Parts: sequence; C-alpha cells; structure tokens
Amino acid sequence: MPRFAPLPDSLPQTVPFIGPETLERRRGTPFAARLGANESAFGPSPLAARAMREAVGGIWKYGDAPGHDLTHALATQLGAAPANIMLGEGIDGLLGTLVRLMVAPGDAVVTSDGAYPTFNYHVTGFGGVLHKVPYRDDAEDPQALLQAARETQARLIYLANPDNPMGSWHKGAAIEAMLDDLPPDCLLVLDEAYAEFAPAEAIPRIDPADPRVIRMRTFSKAYGMAGARIGYAVGAPDLIAGFDRIRNHFGVNRIAQAGALAALADPGWLAHVVASVTAARDRIAQIGAESGLTALPSATNFVALDTHRDGAFARGLVAALEARDVFVRMPGVAPLDRCIRISCAPDPELDVLAKALPAALQDLA
Amino acid sequence: MPRFAPLPDSLPQTVPFIGPETLERRRGTPFAARLGANESAFGPSPLAARAMREAVGGIWKYGDAPGHDLTHALATQLGAAPANIMLGEGIDGLLGTLVRLMVAPGDAVVTSDGAYPTFNYHVTGFGGVLHKVPYRDDAEDPQALLQAARETQARLIYLANPDNPMGSWHKGAAIEAMLDDLPPDCLLVLDEAYAEFAPAEAIPRIDPADPRVIRMRTFSKAYGMAGARIGYAVGAPDLIAGFDRIRNHFGVNRIAQAGALAALADPGWLAHVVASVTAARDRIAQIGAESGLTALPSATNFVALDTHRDGAFARGLVAALEARDVFVRMPGVAPLDRCIRISCAPDPELDVLAKALPAALQDLA
Repeated sequence: MPRFAPLPDSLPQTVPFIGPETLERRRGTPFAARLGANESAFGPSPLAARAMREAVGGIWKYGDAPGHDLTHALATQLGAAPANIMLGEGIDGLLGTLVRLMVAPGDAVVTSDGAYPTFNYHVTGFGGVLHKVPYRDDAEDPQALLQAARETQARLIYLANPDNPMGSWHKGAAIEAMLDDLPPDCLLVLDEAYAEFAPAEAIPRIDPADPRVIRMRTFSKAYGMAGARIGYAVGAPDLIAGFDRIRNHFGVNRIAQAGALAALADPGWLAHVVASVTAARDRIAQIGAESGLTALPSATNFVALDTHRDGAFARGLVAALEARDVFVRMPGVAPLDRCIRISCAPDPELDVLAKALPAALQDLA
Repeated sequence: MPRFAPLPDSLPQTVPFIGPETLERRRGTPFAARLGANESAFGPSPLAARAMREAVGGIWKYGDAPGHDLTHALATQLGAAPANIMLGEGIDGLLGTLVRLMVAPGDAVVTSDGAYPTFNYHVTGFGGVLHKVPYRDDAEDPQALLQAARETQARLIYLANPDNPMGSWHKGAAIEAMLDDLPPDCLLVLDEAYAEFAPAEAIPRIDPADPRVIRMRTFSKAYGMAGARIGYAVGAPDLIAGFDRIRNHFGVNRIAQAGALAALADPGWLAHVVASVTAARDRIAQIGAESGLTALPSATNFVALDTHRDGAFARGLVAALEARDVFVRMPGVAPLDRCIRISCAPDPELDVLAKALPAALQDLA
C-alpha cells in the first residue's frame, strides 16, 4: 500500500471516544439509560424538530455554504456581525479547522490535563505539541494555563468554561482578565459548549471582534441536536475569514441549518430544557448521596459524582453500571478520575440510574 | 490578531464554488431553474425521506461514529468487507481527509486541468504541489496522468470516472489497466460520484481490498441527498483504517445515516431516477440542438453543451442564463470552457431552460 504522509503515519490508531452504539454492539444489548455523552434527552425544540422534518423535502440541494440565514440570526442574538461567526460540523469540526489554521508542526499548545480529549486529538493530528497543566480544585486553572503558554510560546490555550468533565466554572470576569495576560501571538480557545446551562456570571463580556479569543458554541447540548452536527465559532473577522481558506465549505447538513435556525427562535424551549437540567442535576446529586457519592457543583448538563475513592474504583463502577445497562463516562486522569460523570436526562432514565447505582456499588463490594 | 500557521497563511481566500443561494442573494431574486450543481431535483427515495423524518426523533443523540449499519449494508451491496469502507461528510469531506493522510507539504499530486476544483483546493490546502495534464478529446487522459505521476513521483492521481465537468467516461477495463501502470507509492483516487448513471462497462472490476486505489461514492447525486453530506470511500483495510487517525469521528449527521441506509434498500427508486436522468439528458440535448449547441455524450446526471465558441462566449451565456433566472455552471479551463454544463432535472425546470436558452443567446447576439 502507498505509505501515509509522515505526520499521519506517526499517529496512533486510538480514537478520542467510543460511542454508546459501539458499546451496545460489543455488549450485545442496548443501554436502558444513555447518560454518558452529555446529550440532551430532553430533545430539541418541537419547532426545530418540525423545521428539520420539513427540510427533508429540500435535502436534494446542497446546504448554503456560508449558512447565511443562521449566521445572521446568531449575529443578531449575540450582538455581533455576521463576519464574526463561522458555522461548522459541531465544535469538534470547528476545533479541527482552527488547529489546522493556527498550529504548525512543532508548535506548542496549552490545555489542562484531563480536559477535552478531542481537542488534544486535533492538536496531535496536526503535529502540535501539547503542554498540560493540572486542574486546581477540580477546575481548570487560568493562571497555570497562562504561565505554561508564556513558557512554551504557545499558539493556543484551550479552556472550557463551564468545564467538561468536571462541570466547574469560572466567573466571566476571570476569563476577561485572562485576555489581558495572554502572551503575544497566542489565541484563547474558549469552549462554551455548556454556556446555556451556566449562571449569567460565568459568561464573559467580550467584544465579538476581540482578536485575542475565539469562542465555540454548539447546538449539540442545550439545543438537543447532537446528531445534527452543527456549531459555531465567534471571533475577529480576519480569524473567522481564515476558516474559508481550508474548511469543507458545503460540509454543514442542510437539515441541521434549518433546525438550528428554528431552535434559536424558540427561547421558551431552551428555558424549559435549562430548568429540566437544573432539576435533573439535583436529582442526580440526591441519587449519588443515597449511595455515599458526592455531587460536585455543576454549571452544565451533567454532574461529576465523587466516589471518594481512586480511578481504579471509579473505572470499576463505570463498568459495573455498564453491566447494569447504564452508559456513563468518567474523567481520564487523576485526581479527577475519582469521579464518574452522569449526564442529565428525563426521570425515566434517572429512575434506571437510581436503581442501578446502589446495585453496581454492591457488585464492587 | 495571532498569526495563522505558515501554510494556511499562504493560501488564497478563494473558495472552489459559489453556491446558488449565494448567487440568489447577490441577484436579489431566486432562480427559476437550479441546474448548476448536479444535484438531483428528482429527490431522494420516498423511503429515505421517511427514514430521515423519523430520524429527527433521535437527533438529540450523536450519530454512530463508525456508521456500523450503513457500512455493513454497503459492504453487502459491494461484495466488500466493512473494513473496506469509510463514511464521510460527502466526497468533499473524504477527499480532504485522504489528502491529509497521504500528502505532505511539497509532495506531488496529479490531476487533469479542468477537473474537480475541490480536490485541488484540498491538495493546495495541505501544501501539495499540483501537476495538471490536459484533457484529451474532452475526457481525462489516463496515459498522460500516469506519465505525469511517473515524472513527478506523485503520491496521488485523481481521476473522476465518469468525468465532471464533461460527462465523458472510460471503460472499466481502462481503469483496471491503469492500476498495473501506477508508479510505486502512488495511489489512484477514483471519484465515482456519478457511477450510478454510467453504463455497466464504465465501472471497473476492482477487488475492494486492492491497495493501489481508493474509490469514492456519494449519496449526493443519484440518491438525491446532497444536503445530507454523506458519502463513502472503498479501499484496502489499512488505508481505510488510516482515516480514523485524523477524521472527525462523530462528523456524519445521524439523519443522513438513516436516510442513506433506507435509500440503499430502495433500488426501484434508484432505477426510476436513472431512467429520469436518461430522459432528461436527451431533452437537454434537444433543447441545446434547437439553439445550435451540441450535447457531448454523458454518463452522468448533467450534459455539457458545446457552444462551438470560446470561453468568453460561454461565460457570457452562463451570465445571460443567470439573468434569466437559470443557474448553470461551466468548465473552468480551455478548451473545455467552450461548453456550458446543465444538470438533469424534472420537466418543469427544463421547460424554463428551453425558454431561457434561446433568449439568452439572443441577449448575447
């Protein structure tokens, strides 16, 4: 076989995440509760669902490459210009394009040890060199990130606020302060996938045209459209325009664009989902407490439950839950990996969890 | 603003294609006939449309990353193993991933002068050096492609069979013969986006595990699902596995996967579309002939109409048709650019064309 190019040839075969369908095929049975991927089982707005069904009639047409209507609607909502916004195939797709745009082989990139694996996958995939700083008190550590960026002349700092996998968050003012301390030629990648669930104080006030930061948002979480693969980046016009040099221009599904546009126009459903998630977080905390597990505070649609044990124990618990038909995930590195991570969901799924968790702990005892 | 990495910084702002919605916004009025992007206005199978509408209910879930069900159905249809097949966000997405996998900066890649611009865009985007050979008799020239690959030590040869934008095709035996003449370490990229419209003799018989070639197919053309962004590559297992090192694993829309699976199970609809396209090709040829334009033979869902003039004239004709609300495109380089390219469509759209074409020619006279 013709050889791969040297960079891809050097990459491992591993993938960042194994999806629940793959696990179900391995198990031979479906999950009774799908609580591992921070999807929203509360679903999309009924208006978005209707728009997507109606958009099937036009599926023979390629989608609109610039995503004009959605981009303009987002601009209005965000108080930005359309030139500040770039659509993409979810934040995963946008992160890959951004890394390609900014990181040459050998360039340094800074993130937190235990933060989003798919970002790391893209950095490694384009030959970047990752520098990881530890979490501090189960939260990403802005000062340590900045310090590492200065020391390594990093091109990018990745920060998720609110954080995945811990659910913690920083105040917007702390993020704003980071911008003033960024080293030269370093861009802050602010992953706000969970922003809609966060308290208002967690959202920084940043000029959409600020060239020091790019923000990433998605329709996969609060908008309940993970399978549609649509998200957006907000940044300075020159940075946003750069995406058009390398992206797959017609890559965003036409049905996804129609659904996202309709979802934006239904703030009532978003409020319903956020309220449902708040209630589900409380219930997950209660389910955990009944088994001696402690919920960490969360500004997201998931809850990290502290097992008060180590990573080996938590990994065993995830496996025991899987054996009892409950799909959850957990942080990958110590000391975060003392926790398991449970996605919010409607009560029937949480009923399954409430029954399975004490039994799974019993299995391990 | 933090600078781009050197390679993207060197790239132009141009995009390979301007979509019809963008043109409509510039014009301020919609097109009456959308005949420029080789979409299928005959639409998807009704079974596929129903599957897509039903899949909206599960849109809160991420899609299945390996696309297990569709990959297995394709394998059965193709007499291949699932390990021979990789799904992607249309052939555009797959070409980008393939180029990244195979082409390092400075590597040579061979294609035909006037062939698919989006392939060229990806090659340039990853720092590859394009070597273009002329068409011969309005068809891509296998011997010239092979010769250029030998001279440049090319990593890839791109060949579309049937060809876009001319609609011409080679016999499968000629493609099979190319494989034996490929230089070492050079992969043939066989773009078969239009294969379903071609005569059986145009489809080469190639072992799906043959390491010398990767074939690309799509649900965007005959299956009428361009907006769904789903296609697939067929190749040797080690080559196919390489995609997992760098691709966006959850990037294929969940609704698209459901629609494609249902579309595969409806060969009757595919036969209906192919028959409709055959009839539309004849009608486009007749419409052209009535205005003194000659249809080139086509094995695709479009027809290149020879204006018997030059590129400047044909560009004027495309603009005059646009002014009369008809969207068509044309080849980009001489001597192909003496033609305009018309996508097959149902009769109402072709009625618009039949009226607009003589009028547009009159406008130019």
